[in-house]
Amino acid sequence: MKRSERLVDMTKYLMERPHDLIPLPFFAKRYGAAKSSISEDLAILKHTLANNQDGILETVAGASGGVRYVPFWGKKHAQNYLTDLAARIEDPDRILAGGFVYLSDILGNPQDLEKIGKLIATRYAYSKIDVVMTIETKGISLAQAVARYLNVPFIIARKRSKVTEGATVSVNYISSSLDRVSKMELPTRVLNEHSNVLLVDDFMMAGGTLTGMQQLVREFDSNIAGICVLCEADFEDEKLIEGHLSLVKIKRVDGKKKVIIAEPGTIVAHTDYDRF
Amino acid sequence: MKRSERLVDMTKYLMERPHDLIPLPFFAKRYGAAKSSISEDLAILKHTLANNQDGILETVAGASGGVRYVPFWGKKHAQNYLTDLAARIEDPDRILAGGFVYLSDILGNPQDLEKIGKLIATRYAYSKIDVVMTIETKGISLAQAVARYLNVPFIIARKRSKVTEGATVSVNYISSSLDRVSKMELPTRVLNEHSNVLLVDDFMMAGGTLTGMQQLVREFDSNIAGICVLCEADFEDEKLIEGHLSLVKIKRVDGKKKVIIAEPGTIVAHTDYDRF
Repeated sequence: MKRSERLVDMTKYLMERPHDLIPLPFFAKRYGAAKSSISEDLAILKHTLANNQDGILETVAGASGGVRYVPFWGKKHAQNYLTDLAARIEDPDRILAGGFVYLSDILGNPQDLEKIGKLIATRYAYSKIDVVMTIETKGISLAQAVARYLNVPFIIARKRSKVTEGATVSVNYISSSLDRVSKMELPTRVLNEHSNVLLVDDFMMAGGTLTGMQQLVREFDSNIAGICVLCEADFEDEKLIEGHLSLVKIKRVDGKKKVIIAEPGTIVAHTDYDRF
Repeated sequence: MKRSERLVDMTKYLMERPHDLIPLPFFAKRYGAAKSSISEDLAILKHTLANNQDGILETVAGASGGVRYVPFWGKKHAQNYLTDLAARIEDPDRILAGGFVYLSDILGNPQDLEKIGKLIATRYAYSKIDVVMTIETKGISLAQAVARYLNVPFIIARKRSKVTEGATVSVNYISSSLDRVSKMELPTRVLNEHSNVLLVDDFMMAGGTLTGMQQLVREFDSNIAGICVLCEADFEDEKLIEGHLSLVKIKRVDGKKKVIIAEPGTIVAHTDYDRF
C-alpha cells in the first residue's frame, strides 16, 4: 500500500481507537510495509495533529511499545468553543421554572457533544480514568461523549429501581433543588472495586446529586478522579461539593426579566495544555 | 501543506463531520493548494475507504458541490460483528427477571457503540433522517451513537414529567412487559413538524413502547422513517408493530436452565450494500 493510502487508513484507524496502544508491527503487517516506513508515516501524523492543536500521537518505545492517539484539544479551540457556548446559553428562551436552563438541544447535538467530549477528555487524558459515571437522564449523553474520547466505559446511576439490571447498591442524598431526601442506585455489576471514576453531569445547582454519586462510588471502594459538569449555577451560594470543574458558569437566571448571564467555566484554567 | 499532511488532516476533518457537504474551495483555502490537488487527495481518500468497505466519499459536482463523507460499514464487517455480538449476548449471566437480558455493558462500551452506530447509520444513510428518537433510559446511548454517524440531533421521550424541559406532549400506550397503560411524553420544542424520524430502542418485547413513540411522532405531524432495535425478543409472539429491524434476535431466555439463545437480527438482510 502506498504512503498516501496508509496515511488515510492510519488516521482513521487511530481516531477510532483513542488511547489504545497499537504495536508498530500491527501497522507494518496491515500495510505490508517496513517498520521504518511506518515510523515516518507516524511522524507525519504526529506533527499534523500538533500543528492543529487537535490530538497527540504518543510513541512508546521498546518491545511492548507502539503508538497511541490521545484526543487533546488545544486551549484556543476550547476557549473559542466555550465563549460561543456561553453566548448560546444566554438565549432567554432557555429559561425554565426553578432557575433551570434548557440544554436538551446541546445535549442532543452530535457536533456539540463531540467538542464537549474532547474538551473534557483533554482535561482528564492523563488521569488514568477507568470509567465515566453519571446519573440519568440528562447527564448520559455527556458521559458517553467523554467516554468515547477516553475510550473507557460509562455507567449510569438511576433515580429509581429498574427491573432490568439485577442487584443494585443504593444511597440517599439531599436533592437541593427538590429540597428533600432522594435515593439513587447503581447495579452492582457495572463497577469494579478500586476503579478510578470520573463523575460528569449536565447541570449543578448546589451539587446534591453529585454528593450522592460520590457516596455511591465510595460504596464500591472506588476512587473519584474528577468531577466535571457542563453548567454550574454560580448564583447558588451553598455548594455541597468542592474541586469540581465546569464548562459554563451560569451567573444569573432571571425569569421575570428574561435574562440569563453565562460565561466560560473553570475547566480551561485547570487543564495542563503543555502536552503538545 | 504537503499532500501527506493534507491527507491526514482531511481524513480527520471529514470523519468529524459525517454527511456534511464540504465545498472543495474550503479545502483549497485551508491547505493553500490547487483544486486539482485537492481532487487528487479526495480520490485517494475515496478508494482507501472503499477498499476497506468502511465509508463512502461522495463527490457532488457543480457550483454548489463539494465532498461528503458517509459512514457506511460493509456487509462482511456487519455480519462478523453481529455474529460476535449474538454470541456474547448468549452469556447466561445476562439473564434477568421477566425475560429481560442485561445489556448495560454493551450500551456503555464506546467500541460497541461505535460499531452499532455505524451499522445502523449505514442502513439509514440515504433515508434523509432529520432526527433520531428514543425513550429514556437505556435507548439513549444507542440513539446518540446512531445520531453521531448520521450527524443529526437525537431526542429523548420521557416516562415521567421533568420540570426542566418546559411544555410537553404526552400519549398513553400499552406497556406489554408491565401489562398496563403507561404514559410517555416529549417536550414540544425538541421536534419540528414534518420531521423524518428514526426510532431506536435497546430491547423490544412486543413493541408496546415503540407504539407509544409512533403516536408521539404523529402528534408532531412528523413521519417515521424507520424503526430499529438492538435486541428483539423473538419468543414474543404478539408483535404490536411491524416493519422494524433488529441487530440481534433473542430466540429464547430460560432463567431456570440458564440458557439464552441469540442470533443476528434482520438489519443486514434489509440493507442495500451496493453503494460502494
